[in-house]
Amino acid sequence: MPRTRKLFSIRIAIDMSSSDPGSTGFSAFDPATGEALDADFPIATWAVLDELAGNAAAAFEVGAEADTVAAFLEAYADRIDANAASLAAVAARETGLPEEGRLKNGEIPRTSGQLRQAAAAVRDGAWARPTISDGNIRSILEPLGPTVVIGPNNFPFAFNGVCGGDFAAAIGAGCPVIAKGHPHHPATCRDLAALMKEAAKAVGLLDGWVSFFYDCTPEDGLKLVRDPRIAAVAFTGSQRAGLSIKAACDETGTVGHFELGSVNPLFILPGALEERAEEIVDELTTSALLGGGQFCTQPGIVVLPAGEATTKFASQLQEKFDAAPTPPLLSEAVVTGLEEGTKTLRKAGANVLPSAPSPDEPGYRYPNTVLAVPGERFLEDPNAFQTECFGPASLLVTRTDAEQRLAIARTLHGQLTATIYSDTHGADDAEYGPLAAILRRRCGRLLNDKMPTGVAVVPAMNHGGPYPASGHPHFTAVGIPASMTRFTRLACYDNVRNDRLPAALRD
Amino acid sequence: MPRTRKLFSIRIAIDMSSSDPGSTGFSAFDPATGEALDADFPIATWAVLDELAGNAAAAFEVGAEADTVAAFLEAYADRIDANAASLAAVAARETGLPEEGRLKNGEIPRTSGQLRQAAAAVRDGAWARPTISDGNIRSILEPLGPTVVIGPNNFPFAFNGVCGGDFAAAIGAGCPVIAKGHPHHPATCRDLAALMKEAAKAVGLLDGWVSFFYDCTPEDGLKLVRDPRIAAVAFTGSQRAGLSIKAACDETGTVGHFELGSVNPLFILPGALEERAEEIVDELTTSALLGGGQFCTQPGIVVLPAGEATTKFASQLQEKFDAAPTPPLLSEAVVTGLEEGTKTLRKAGANVLPSAPSPDEPGYRYPNTVLAVPGERFLEDPNAFQTECFGPASLLVTRTDAEQRLAIARTLHGQLTATIYSDTHGADDAEYGPLAAILRRRCGRLLNDKMPTGVAVVPAMNHGGPYPASGHPHFTAVGIPASMTRFTRLACYDNVRNDRLPAALRD
Repeated sequence: MPRTRKLFSIRIAIDMSSSDPGSTGFSAFDPATGEALDADFPIATWAVLDELAGNAAAAFEVGAEADTVAAFLEAYADRIDANAASLAAVAARETGLPEEGRLKNGEIPRTSGQLRQAAAAVRDGAWARPTISDGNIRSILEPLGPTVVIGPNNFPFAFNGVCGGDFAAAIGAGCPVIAKGHPHHPATCRDLAALMKEAAKAVGLLDGWVSFFYDCTPEDGLKLVRDPRIAAVAFTGSQRAGLSIKAACDETGTVGHFELGSVNPLFILPGALEERAEEIVDELTTSALLGGGQFCTQPGIVVLPAGEATTKFASQLQEKFDAAPTPPLLSEAVVTGLEEGTKTLRKAGANVLPSAPSPDEPGYRYPNTVLAVPGERFLEDPNAFQTECFGPASLLVTRTDAEQRLAIARTLHGQLTATIYSDTHGADDAEYGPLAAILRRRCGRLLNDKMPTGVAVVPAMNHGGPYPASGHPHFTAVGIPASMTRFTRLACYDNVRNDRLPAALRD
Repeated sequence: MPRTRKLFSIRIAIDMSSSDPGSTGFSAFDPATGEALDADFPIATWAVLDELAGNAAAAFEVGAEADTVAAFLEAYADRIDANAASLAAVAARETGLPEEGRLKNGEIPRTSGQLRQAAAAVRDGAWARPTISDGNIRSILEPLGPTVVIGPNNFPFAFNGVCGGDFAAAIGAGCPVIAKGHPHHPATCRDLAALMKEAAKAVGLLDGWVSFFYDCTPEDGLKLVRDPRIAAVAFTGSQRAGLSIKAACDETGTVGHFELGSVNPLFILPGALEERAEEIVDELTTSALLGGGQFCTQPGIVVLPAGEATTKFASQLQEKFDAAPTPPLLSEAVVTGLEEGTKTLRKAGANVLPSAPSPDEPGYRYPNTVLAVPGERFLEDPNAFQTECFGPASLLVTRTDAEQRLAIARTLHGQLTATIYSDTHGADDAEYGPLAAILRRRCGRLLNDKMPTGVAVVPAMNHGGPYPASGHPHFTAVGIPASMTRFTRLACYDNVRNDRLPAALRD
């Protein structure tokens, strides 16, 4: 995940007028040109955040009926679908992502679908695991309370704090949400927040149950996280920002859920390389460069066996990378992050395979980059080689043998995904077992013969993984209803009179 | 929960011979006399802990079959039952707890029952929530890996690191366990560890899957928690020790589960007091003084309405407390903790109701103590008045009206339990709802008309609660299978070939 704080310090210096008299304002940038967009947006003062927290806590004390919550999710989904074209146009301008295929017909239906799946889970109720035991002891998952949701820059809809997966999960669990916008796509957030408010009003959701602010200073953000009125935080983004929020949560006992990035190691076993190298080159190129490579599950490390086939694979991959377009990236910070990340890899001993020169188109660009390092060198400094290069860059770890592949697997940090390509005739079977036994414990999702990008919103999905890929390996950020349980506490009722029990626990 | 580290510094100075040449040894004390018991026990060096971690990690990489794990749990339970009499005798001497009623016929059958419940869950398998979605995406809860279990002093069996609830849950989840003994009952731990090893051998559980050490220095303990071979930690005990371990877990991303104590507020509403004051005095005396009051769920704060009935209630309670025996407490640290805790309460403005003088029997004793403070004073310093006095002491918060009771409820920290006594004719009904709405969000278990001590091992139990009662409000330490899920990560298999899937996820 890219870092956003560097730009932030520039932006905060622009003292623009805004609706909030105490704040300074900021503008977003057009990734295709690098130029500031014309609208300006306020940075919330503490007074604003304080009011949002107070309203959310007051609303939560009153509570909301499950039916109202479900109706809100559906009403919001309907409004997002109805406004898909204009939302996609605004988001495309702010993110540089393709308006039709990616945003209007990809992310937006996925986003409204997530909201509707959460609504269905709320109406069904089984997700909360109502349990009745002998002795009139009963338990159920109940909402934690006001939740701050902070989304990343790379999914202006599906992971947006104001409408994405964490928003749907927290609302579905029964929590009020205070959504933070992303400074790289404020107009998108503004339009979504307006639809959110409209939907809330239409179904009669309590004032303060859903609220939104564009941005705040890091200090005020941490103050909000530590505030006793805030019960939970969900964060997707850079490891640097995420870990500072996690530290604040750890200190106060606030429940925090963090998705912090991953290099998504992919192991290609010898039989698979022999059987279908060209096919895999194609699949890898598509997956690694999709959306400018700006996915949490982009395959950033590819482990290949020693031999001629790998040399050919690397050269074919490099050709494909060079021939592929270099779309505008989400922000200057993504470009800076790639420069820093690839520098770290090179300093540790990786070579950049010969590639086309830096794109001379305007805007935030970076060449599609293949790096390579022999397995024995990787093992000398495995931490450095796991530096995330968020964007269109992948590191090939070459010249490995079976023993080295196991050794590399053992050095891996917690990952969202790990992937093994093996042949279809059994040549790789002996190696698969021991390698998978190591990898599956270091990742949230283990794949066979399939690239890790593309996270289906199905109940069995896990978009999470051992630390530092996420904050806790028991929970998933994608996949309803499991993602909803992240925003719950276990509530037990012992000898409580029947008419005082939550409806789902009554006789 | 009592603090143990103070005594520890005395013990570590006793340089006794032990089986581990690098360690110093320690002895336990007889709570009934305050004198050192004759046996001496080794403090593990880092070399020993390092070996245990290595063995556990190596065993986990090989893995264990569910049938073997279940058979181990059952074989261990059988051995504990078969040795109940001798185990209870040893534990009674080390803890001062009643040998027959409490230990032999209470805790021991509960402990073997927990192990058998975990075995049944393992054999059944549904606890791991196998889920199969479209697109060949499948998920299941899988064990985290080597887990360090650290138990408290107040349950030498049911919460003992080497056989108690956390042990059963972690083993049931499929994790190897490194159990830390408790320095106040090392001989009990020694005898249990011998049975554990015997059971492991009998069923062919891998070497290193279950291991035990008596004690270690705090520094080595934190080093073990931070060790990358350790996947999880379960801790029940003092907040001070627990928070230092939690900080180490937070730093390294190790999954930590903490049960850190609670004052278990109990609200007696006016109607209930009018209807059955004497009955409640009896129930409260029994619950508050049970086992020397040394329960995590001991009712430490009792909120009573203004009026004559409360004055009478307080005086009756004080008489009952004075008349009750003052059994030996678990350790000198419990006595010191009570002295410090009641001093804090008195300093903040609580009065100790007239009571019998300090017991002049030998051993670790403390008078059964009733303190009282008016509601308005409580509200001036609610943090001070929530100081846990672990042992036979309860604070009455008197002269409250309905509005004050809600205000008091809003100041409460996270609790394991909260209790409301209300009348049976509806006089308290108007107040119940708003009060319960606040309390249920601040506790793991809400009770009606029943004292909070006595934690049934049933699936719907929650022995946990919002921070700082526990580390995470989503999880319970008691209640199988829910307690087992604490030691799992969500494992997703995406497009993985059928014969490579865990058995429970195959077609």
